[in-house]
Amino acid sequence: MRKTLVVIGVGLIGGSAAKSFRKAFAVGHIIGVGRGQENLGQALDSGLIDEVSTDAEAAVGSADWVLVATPVGQIPAVFEAIAHSLPDDAIILDAGSTKQDVIAAGRKHLGKHFSRFVPGHPVAGAEISGCQGARAELFSGKPVILTPHEGLQDKALEEAKDFWQSCGAVVTLMDAQIHDRIFAAVSHLPHALSYALVDMLAGRPDSELLFSYAASGFRDFTRIAASSPEMWRDICLANRGELMQVLAEYRDRLNEMLTWLTEEDTASLLKMFSHARSARNRWGQDRQ
Amino acid sequence: MRKTLVVIGVGLIGGSAAKSFRKAFAVGHIIGVGRGQENLGQALDSGLIDEVSTDAEAAVGSADWVLVATPVGQIPAVFEAIAHSLPDDAIILDAGSTKQDVIAAGRKHLGKHFSRFVPGHPVAGAEISGCQGARAELFSGKPVILTPHEGLQDKALEEAKDFWQSCGAVVTLMDAQIHDRIFAAVSHLPHALSYALVDMLAGRPDSELLFSYAASGFRDFTRIAASSPEMWRDICLANRGELMQVLAEYRDRLNEMLTWLTEEDTASLLKMFSHARSARNRWGQDRQ
Repeated sequence: MRKTLVVIGVGLIGGSAAKSFRKAFAVGHIIGVGRGQENLGQALDSGLIDEVSTDAEAAVGSADWVLVATPVGQIPAVFEAIAHSLPDDAIILDAGSTKQDVIAAGRKHLGKHFSRFVPGHPVAGAEISGCQGARAELFSGKPVILTPHEGLQDKALEEAKDFWQSCGAVVTLMDAQIHDRIFAAVSHLPHALSYALVDMLAGRPDSELLFSYAASGFRDFTRIAASSPEMWRDICLANRGELMQVLAEYRDRLNEMLTWLTEEDTASLLKMFSHARSARNRWGQDRQ
Repeated sequence: MRKTLVVIGVGLIGGSAAKSFRKAFAVGHIIGVGRGQENLGQALDSGLIDEVSTDAEAAVGSADWVLVATPVGQIPAVFEAIAHSLPDDAIILDAGSTKQDVIAAGRKHLGKHFSRFVPGHPVAGAEISGCQGARAELFSGKPVILTPHEGLQDKALEEAKDFWQSCGAVVTLMDAQIHDRIFAAVSHLPHALSYALVDMLAGRPDSELLFSYAASGFRDFTRIAASSPEMWRDICLANRGELMQVLAEYRDRLNEMLTWLTEEDTASLLKMFSHARSARNRWGQDRQ
């Protein structure tokens, strides 16, 4: 059976999913939808996709699978655009880093097709933009978290599992709120903190001097501040409930640390630093 | 002329300085002082030092150069121990990451020898402990910041410059307070922030789950939280005046960010993230 995949947003994630899909289903036809003509042209030339479209609504008409791999801020508009031309058996997937907001957008815009929308988050390097870095192995052994919602068809969930597993991913099911809480803590907060530090230092009159003495610790700490500002603004807003909670908790920790410094409470400082080092080393070792 | 260097604290910095010194002055004699017998034994076996001592007071009696390369928290006690047996022409150097507190300790304990104490900060990877990683090239092309104090002999300053330049370093002179302000911002604060995040997440009941989904951005951001807790407690306390100021300023930025999230002020978020990304990229390019 010749299956058609429509990828809306042919970046690293969308492009890599296209490559994986083609490998798993040798006869598949792949339509790439996007606004960047140069990027889409490259995707076509390199055989990543078979057909180019700038019209998402028309493109999904023949889809067996639709993968929405745009930045999260654009997902609601994409859903709105495609809702009326989706075939009645198409499986709709997304690859957004936040899930509660994407589910809300699906509920609002997808109508009867919402029951075949399977929200997912492939936890794989989304830092690179454009399809140049796309590779079939991107998801290999990496987690893809699916966050089923009430009203999702079992069959659609099973097919979505098959899709991501055929891409080599390790599929996990999770409640959308728990998902968003986890990623607020381990991903969205660190990005916000790193941006805030670089912004603060860059705004000081002595910033040139400061940066000239910044070394390897600073380089590692601020690497994520070089990520796409638009993408991270969207993520922070999409997940602002969870992010605000963990950001306020962190702010309270800094206030506590200020108290320790004022009172020269060396024991509390050492306890915090030691606890952190142990946890970081344990995690680092698990990862090697 | 056979010059004698006494290195108190034969870790990465002390060991590398010993190697560089031997290379520059082929006939130098090097005494290593420390408390870790195994580490000192290794330093002796590998030819890094020529003689081992556990008694700093006795060891410095024949010194032309004394390099105090212990963690900053131990420097006052070392100064106190050696003050009465220092030769009248020995040059005293340190390698601490904070400078105002080390100068205060020198003024308090070194007596007449204070005029030959040249405070310095080699800005080179101090993350590794022990002498195993010591190499003559550690300082090559790297900054060593000297922070002269009132009452420092010109001749001592010139000799200190020669010492560090013979190690391949690029020597800069700076006011101690400016030094401490710079490093509070680009080094001490990032370490404190990284420790605080890992400590907070590790203390949550769902920490195992959180860490299991942490990815490369988290890894980079928290790499410095694996640094020595004792060393960083000492640095944070030694420089607490400057650190508290920049930490409070940063805390205020987080409060501002919380307001933007509450009010869905997307423009301010994007402005902060974009400003940070530009500055980080500019700095990163200068570094390549």
